Amino acid sequence: MTSTFPEQNKQIIFKQDPGSGWVDESHMDLAFTHVPKTLKAGQVLLQNLYLSVDPYMRMRMNTVSESYFPAFQLGKPLQGAGIAKIIASENDNYKIGDIVATIIGWEEYTIVSKESPMQKINNELNFPLTHYLGILGMPGATAYHGFINIGEPKQGETVFVSGAAGAVGLVVGQLAKLKGCRVIGSAGSDEKVQALVNEFGFDAAFNYKIGNLSKKLKELCPNGIDIYFDNVGGETLDTVLLLMNTFGRLVECGMISQYNESKPYRLQNLFVIVGKQLKLQGFIISGQISDPHFMKKFFSDMSKWLNEGKFKYTQTITEGIENAPSAFIGMLKGQNTGKQIVQIIK
Amino acid sequence: MTSTFPEQNKQIIFKQDPGSGWVDESHMDLAFTHVPKTLKAGQVLLQNLYLSVDPYMRMRMNTVSESYFPAFQLGKPLQGAGIAKIIASENDNYKIGDIVATIIGWEEYTIVSKESPMQKINNELNFPLTHYLGILGMPGATAYHGFINIGEPKQGETVFVSGAAGAVGLVVGQLAKLKGCRVIGSAGSDEKVQALVNEFGFDAAFNYKIGNLSKKLKELCPNGIDIYFDNVGGETLDTVLLLMNTFGRLVECGMISQYNESKPYRLQNLFVIVGKQLKLQGFIISGQISDPHFMKKFFSDMSKWLNEGKFKYTQTITEGIENAPSAFIGMLKGQNTGKQIVQIIK
Repeated sequence: MTSTFPEQNKQIIFKQDPGSGWVDESHMDLAFTHVPKTLKAGQVLLQNLYLSVDPYMRMRMNTVSESYFPAFQLGKPLQGAGIAKIIASENDNYKIGDIVATIIGWEEYTIVSKESPMQKINNELNFPLTHYLGILGMPGATAYHGFINIGEPKQGETVFVSGAAGAVGLVVGQLAKLKGCRVIGSAGSDEKVQALVNEFGFDAAFNYKIGNLSKKLKELCPNGIDIYFDNVGGETLDTVLLLMNTFGRLVECGMISQYNESKPYRLQNLFVIVGKQLKLQGFIISGQISDPHFMKKFFSDMSKWLNEGKFKYTQTITEGIENAPSAFIGMLKGQNTGKQIVQIIK
Repeated sequence: MTSTFPEQNKQIIFKQDPGSGWVDESHMDLAFTHVPKTLKAGQVLLQNLYLSVDPYMRMRMNTVSESYFPAFQLGKPLQGAGIAKIIASENDNYKIGDIVATIIGWEEYTIVSKESPMQKINNELNFPLTHYLGILGMPGATAYHGFINIGEPKQGETVFVSGAAGAVGLVVGQLAKLKGCRVIGSAGSDEKVQALVNEFGFDAAFNYKIGNLSKKLKELCPNGIDIYFDNVGGETLDTVLLLMNTFGRLVECGMISQYNESKPYRLQNLFVIVGKQLKLQGFIISGQISDPHFMKKFFSDMSKWLNEGKFKYTQTITEGIENAPSAFIGMLKGQNTGKQIVQIIK
């Protein structure tokens, strides 16, 4: 096959650090650049197909504060997990036409060097390619590792998931049902709440923006909470701590409520972890994703369950890389249901 | 052997709930009562030898707020772990002269019914009896389970212990050295700090009342902290969170800094547990103590190490049950070094 070298590359450039406030369109810029006509040894040229848009990216926009993800570089394209097709290769491990999951730029074409980890997608079971950014990708692996390995669910236990309508939360809820748990979810709109119960099999769900959280949770979890899968942190975590059962597990997956706050919420109820003998464990999925044993087990279990129809899955697909900034901003405000994806070319 | 029935029983009665403030002598009363001259079926009469005085007792003095320990009963003797000699028995499992570890009243004599758990002490290795309230009792088991099973120490790691000069902290520090770790302790006086380093083998120690905690810890833990054995909670925990290494473990054993506070300290740094992939786990030792497998392993390891001279141990013994209130109040203010024990009869 012959290599294809496009003329022009449409990109979204990181223009300005938003500090501790909300991100808006002024922090990013649309740009057009040229793609080199030759590759160096080991490089491949990707035509990007799908870009994953995720909450952790907000932290990468802070160029001064410490974070566990390196900051994006000002003046360069933003980056994220993506699915791409190889259209030119100087690397013997990859040939033209291969589909890969890797880190791509927010752009139409990305050159990737030999050192960057890329995972070839065989897709023998013919899942939609976007599954590899969702239920078979980072969010799926996050839900699987966090809920199964850290949450250690037992039949009959009560599970509460915050941010339940997000890419990770939807998978956690369905894993909980699969393990024989009772599962309650919170989300930020009535439509999402309806969907959690009517489409995704949650036993109950509620809109966290309305009413008294403690009262609502007590009503929906009359036997207390055994596992809290935490996507939001802050005041919700503080409230949940008081409702946890003895030996409960709190899976600390993210604290989206804190990412846009200049002053973090100050917890007052953590002291209960001694008496209730609770385990709080934080994790980020990158370590697991580079562990072949974990990935094999995850793919095998998840593909099986998907094929058996055990999972429903939803995603919000925004078309056109030029619309990635608004998709990202919308996701931070909770406007998506399920995984937010950008289809690079309309 | 003939039963002995004493004439009089000197007791410390729980007189008044101290609310959220400091306990003082006015909350307890010295009383003299009579001991019955006969026992019911299954009962034994104990002559109390040693009483353990522990921080958790402060929580049992709150009669209205929820706690994981039941409140003491107003008008009745306070209670605690003790070592006693059986001086009369209507229970075939115990004979006069047996030495037992059990829950006793703050009094000279206690009648114990069949249902109360009592552990016979054979003491084949001739340890001092007070060891069974300390390094071979609840504080030793707390240190052992918390540090070994929850802390999961690895050779070369850095361990920080707060409340290091207390009954549990001293054992944790020595276990840490035994496991090849570097161990730093904090305590509330310069004498205690000296003792930690000079007598108990800590690599470094400091007085938490002096200077900037964060700066001091950074100086003494240049490679960060892998295990934090937390006896104090509050602001110290908040500071330590920022200094933890990735995959660090925080063993939440107690939060003594919070027990006398009407407003709990509000933590602002817990959010780091996601990015640093930390595990915080709270525990109370009562569950383990009733697990024969745990206790067998604990006794066997600890007796071996004691016999090999691997452990130094210190205790503060106050003589006379009438002095138990001042011993208890002093311990809450950090005046003891090592385990605080009351020898019931002077």
